[in-house]
Amino acid sequence: MATLTTIGFDADDTLWHNERNFRLTEERFTDLLADYSDKDNLTERLLAAERRNLRLYGYGVKGFTLSMIETAIEVTEGKAPASVIGEILEAGRTMLSHPVEPLPHVEETLQALKGSFRLVLITKGDLFDQERKVAESGLGDHFDAVEIVPEKTAETYRTLFARHGDGPGRAMMVGNSLKSDVVPALDAGSHGVHVPYEITWALEHADIPAGRDRFHQVAHLGELQALLFRLV
Amino acid sequence: MATLTTIGFDADDTLWHNERNFRLTEERFTDLLADYSDKDNLTERLLAAERRNLRLYGYGVKGFTLSMIETAIEVTEGKAPASVIGEILEAGRTMLSHPVEPLPHVEETLQALKGSFRLVLITKGDLFDQERKVAESGLGDHFDAVEIVPEKTAETYRTLFARHGDGPGRAMMVGNSLKSDVVPALDAGSHGVHVPYEITWALEHADIPAGRDRFHQVAHLGELQALLFRLV
Repeated sequence: MATLTTIGFDADDTLWHNERNFRLTEERFTDLLADYSDKDNLTERLLAAERRNLRLYGYGVKGFTLSMIETAIEVTEGKAPASVIGEILEAGRTMLSHPVEPLPHVEETLQALKGSFRLVLITKGDLFDQERKVAESGLGDHFDAVEIVPEKTAETYRTLFARHGDGPGRAMMVGNSLKSDVVPALDAGSHGVHVPYEITWALEHADIPAGRDRFHQVAHLGELQALLFRLV
Repeated sequence: MATLTTIGFDADDTLWHNERNFRLTEERFTDLLADYSDKDNLTERLLAAERRNLRLYGYGVKGFTLSMIETAIEVTEGKAPASVIGEILEAGRTMLSHPVEPLPHVEETLQALKGSFRLVLITKGDLFDQERKVAESGLGDHFDAVEIVPEKTAETYRTLFARHGDGPGRAMMVGNSLKSDVVPALDAGSHGVHVPYEITWALEHADIPAGRDRFHQVAHLGELQALLFRLV
């Protein structure tokens, strides 16, 4: 096997908690509209709005906030009071200033790998918010490069692992999303390491890839070094 | 003078129309709320919201839409009907799918400079929306690199002109905003070329730099080649 030189890391729910904050905000949202509709219907309608708006808003908190407002108007048939909309705006702002909480094993794993591999942080979402989180996490210095991209496809990984490493064949992508981190990295010819997070956003679901020899799974980032020892 | 090797171009209102669409949307916004407040007050309150939210939302259409909604709730003292909020959401979505209209002289200027200089597109705003506009403009192929950044400071230009060229001392930045394109580029040691656009967003105002020998001004991009002949 060609030597592995470059490791890409997803950020949200791989390096730090993220989806948890979306879920908490979603609960606040369904509470706010409890007089108008039940929780399941609200969650479903919100997800439909997010899916519909993805091609215009992309990923991130601002688009999520706009989709919540849209859903509030929709489910109340235009009767949502402005105070509810104001609370949704406030919930979005809270998310955007929410402290960044790194996941266990992250700091020491990055510390240990730094120097032996080129480390690249590869994340999607709001540019502004992601840069804030990288800065606030204090993890930025462990990375040789930070790339914030609108979407994660096989082409994304081919381009980024060529730019920051020795091409996708000598790279590994590590992340919690099979759909965005693992499968497209495998398609690009890289290793793909799945590190499950406690919850997965409905729009990030994908099946575990079958019969692909560069697919790996670890329970948490603390197991990554052992995997690398086996591979290299 | 060290040879100039790299030219950075701003995108919004330098390569294509942008601020015009914000102004049209602002008019739609003030019309929607005409029963509650006069135009000047609405414009002023909206600008105050945008300024206040900049540190959370950054630049771009999604943040602008959220600030319009916030202002609508504020000026109506919580009485804005959901239908008005829905119209604001719709106005935001229209902006995000608005066709990209390149400015005059852009295409032929980029075509002429390509090959002789490294050309880098440097823009701020929503990552997702800016990528869409680059793709839709058809201008992306003229550039050696596209960089979408959260904020444009002297440090931004130092970093980007080192990454894509031979450092800021051998680079030139071209754009319509004195505040974001020209002054920080001059501060980084680059040439700064101001190409005024018909309107400037209030938060992008800055004074014409005095007594700085790398400051230049052209009426439109069609004059850029003549400037480069004089300099090189």
